[in-house]
Amino acid sequence: MKDLESLSASQAAHALAKREIKATDLLLACLDRIGQRESAVKAWVSLGKENALARARELDKGAIRGLLHGLPIGVKDLYDTFDLPSSYGSPIYSNHYPATDAVSVALMRQAGGIILGKTVTTEFAAFKSAATSNPHNPLHTPGGSSSGSAAAVADFMVPLATGSQTAGSIIRPASFCGVVGYKPSFGKISVAGVKSLSPIQDTLGCFGRSIGDVALGVAAMSGDHALARIEDLHNKPRIAICKTPDWAIAQKETAAALAVARFAAEAISKGSVGDLKLPTLFDQYSQTQARIMAAEMSRSLTFERLRFPKKISPQLAKQLNDGAAISYEQYTKDLLLNQEAHAAIQLIFCKELDLIIAPSAIGEAPGSKETTGDPIFCRGWTLLGLPCINLNITSGPNGMPVGVQLIAGPGKDHFLLSAARAFARSLSDPVTRDQA
Amino acid sequence: MKDLESLSASQAAHALAKREIKATDLLLACLDRIGQRESAVKAWVSLGKENALARARELDKGAIRGLLHGLPIGVKDLYDTFDLPSSYGSPIYSNHYPATDAVSVALMRQAGGIILGKTVTTEFAAFKSAATSNPHNPLHTPGGSSSGSAAAVADFMVPLATGSQTAGSIIRPASFCGVVGYKPSFGKISVAGVKSLSPIQDTLGCFGRSIGDVALGVAAMSGDHALARIEDLHNKPRIAICKTPDWAIAQKETAAALAVARFAAEAISKGSVGDLKLPTLFDQYSQTQARIMAAEMSRSLTFERLRFPKKISPQLAKQLNDGAAISYEQYTKDLLLNQEAHAAIQLIFCKELDLIIAPSAIGEAPGSKETTGDPIFCRGWTLLGLPCINLNITSGPNGMPVGVQLIAGPGKDHFLLSAARAFARSLSDPVTRDQA
Repeated sequence: MKDLESLSASQAAHALAKREIKATDLLLACLDRIGQRESAVKAWVSLGKENALARARELDKGAIRGLLHGLPIGVKDLYDTFDLPSSYGSPIYSNHYPATDAVSVALMRQAGGIILGKTVTTEFAAFKSAATSNPHNPLHTPGGSSSGSAAAVADFMVPLATGSQTAGSIIRPASFCGVVGYKPSFGKISVAGVKSLSPIQDTLGCFGRSIGDVALGVAAMSGDHALARIEDLHNKPRIAICKTPDWAIAQKETAAALAVARFAAEAISKGSVGDLKLPTLFDQYSQTQARIMAAEMSRSLTFERLRFPKKISPQLAKQLNDGAAISYEQYTKDLLLNQEAHAAIQLIFCKELDLIIAPSAIGEAPGSKETTGDPIFCRGWTLLGLPCINLNITSGPNGMPVGVQLIAGPGKDHFLLSAARAFARSLSDPVTRDQA
Repeated sequence: MKDLESLSASQAAHALAKREIKATDLLLACLDRIGQRESAVKAWVSLGKENALARARELDKGAIRGLLHGLPIGVKDLYDTFDLPSSYGSPIYSNHYPATDAVSVALMRQAGGIILGKTVTTEFAAFKSAATSNPHNPLHTPGGSSSGSAAAVADFMVPLATGSQTAGSIIRPASFCGVVGYKPSFGKISVAGVKSLSPIQDTLGCFGRSIGDVALGVAAMSGDHALARIEDLHNKPRIAICKTPDWAIAQKETAAALAVARFAAEAISKGSVGDLKLPTLFDQYSQTQARIMAAEMSRSLTFERLRFPKKISPQLAKQLNDGAAISYEQYTKDLLLNQEAHAAIQLIFCKELDLIIAPSAIGEAPGSKETTGDPIFCRGWTLLGLPCINLNITSGPNGMPVGVQLIAGPGKDHFLLSAARAFARSLSDPVTRDQA
């Protein structure tokens, strides 16, 4: 079989489980692709080539280990790995070898996954851009903070890679790179062993090139293996488009993507798809999210702030100082508003809706490497803890990918995957149909 | 001033802030006490004597740093510390030096605390007993898993020490050792950098010898500094005793403690204190907690289970295997029941009550070092995420301390501290009154 690196994670997992392909060959194809493309894309911080090859050979000889048997995986460098340095995008941790894998990494290894290397993260997953380029055009950002994972998957270097989202660090780069990004429900995957930023909303997830891929990844990372068996939709879901209170800054291509999405959504809901106007308490919710994030990050990085102030970038230092200046009283007020918001969205999902479709980003990936783009269209959904999936829909004025996100009610990850697959299948765009 | 080691944390903090005592002298007094007693109590895994002395001298010279200025603190060895080994009670991590402090440790240092050493935890904070003795009688357990912290504070080795609770690991040892133990609301203190067991309920807290002490500790660990200024009760709180569905196994001394507690509660509520019977959905809630904990722990310790199976004790291995055998379907059912339980308890606190008083443990500390006692009377409150404080009330048939726990509604930590101080003051027992 040729072009093994172009198989999606679910295609490859299927072929590996049936022994139709070898883990070693898939790995070598990925390494070959990385060899050709890495100098342009810069997706990787480190590669554990020898360990990965040894593991692939072992897996080819032994029994099928689990859902990820033989799949090469990129791990965002915000995650701890015992056998690869974990620097969290910061010079403070250059050449840092943790003693232990992050829980989700250990679960992926247990499921037969091959940890091929660590992918580029921005500094502590914040907003300062990193070296990675967008594979579709090297002058554009891949988005952040999971920059390397999104780019590596988009560029066929690896079929599956992990991400994390505190504001918009999975959905935004997935949209910019034209891949599927899945941020499951808050708490679905243990965050232990992943650098902590804002504990109330840090969420792990992954990137793939199909809905089945990301289902597989989150199934292994969470231990909820049934997620990998996506069920067909049994009922017509109630769907609405939510442009959110931040709609004024959306660009034309995002409006176009939503228009296409509405069409596909109407096909699966078998009726017209209306617009959801969020209650007024959400008017400033993106700002609430940013304040909570800044306040919690400034506490989470106390050790680094005390001991290595000079090794923190001016951009991050400013964010942390702003966060430290937020009073605990303000933080408590924000948490109370957040509780109300959780209750309000729960009610909406109970009474009115099964699925929300919303922008993933303002528009296509900015044509600059100095920014990772604006996470504003993700902030609220992240703080709400709702499961979200980005799907590629169209392209922008510079030909860069543009996605939308599908959002389900609290804890409804199984339904979200079913709906996303049905949605992807109903899209007329053949590229997007391939994602299903 | 003599006997500095017998000052409570809040007394010492007050004297240190006024420069009435020196951090160096307090530290030397604590080290002296440890020197006399450690061979009998075995509360410590490691001591950072030189670093602590250097830090104390620096603090005595410089400005007042914060709430914990100059206070020597014991840190449970489940917490990461960059300058002291962190072994989580397991031979897998013997001589392991993390790169970073746990977030809560960094916040304590920022507030001027002196990390004196690491205190004994049971293996991964589970149920296999460790070396520590109960300071009141070396043949009795101090409880677990925060064994060393509870014993060190009870024995005047240190005025303040940290703990963590996933089942009953703060409240139970506090009761067994006759000290104040405070488990704040779930999420109040970042758990980052503390070995993760059951992410849905792992909660950090601390031990002291007065309500003011534990308020000070949690104020610094969380960043909610206003917690350290305990306000007087403004209204008469609505209080009930809750014997819980597990009451059948309570011993006589626990019943006696609740009877005394009812008397004190009536004094502060200015009326009769009734009994709360929990809704039937709580009938098996302790078992639900145990299952969720076992299932999550088996995932959280995947790395250790895969790579170091022989370095896990048979007792813990059994618990982890039992946890791994719980289906994700069962786990999901348990999470759903837990959601209902959260809603039910929230309603009770909204409509009927401000404060619950419940047993801290079955009875006094068992007269054995082979067990750490049964956490059953803590399991449910931990999974509910409610703030709890243990206060010493009476003693059992062997003269060992017996406490009760005061429990407030979700997020009501400020109120809990106010109520606990009023409660402690109203107790007729002069020993307990001293805790206020």
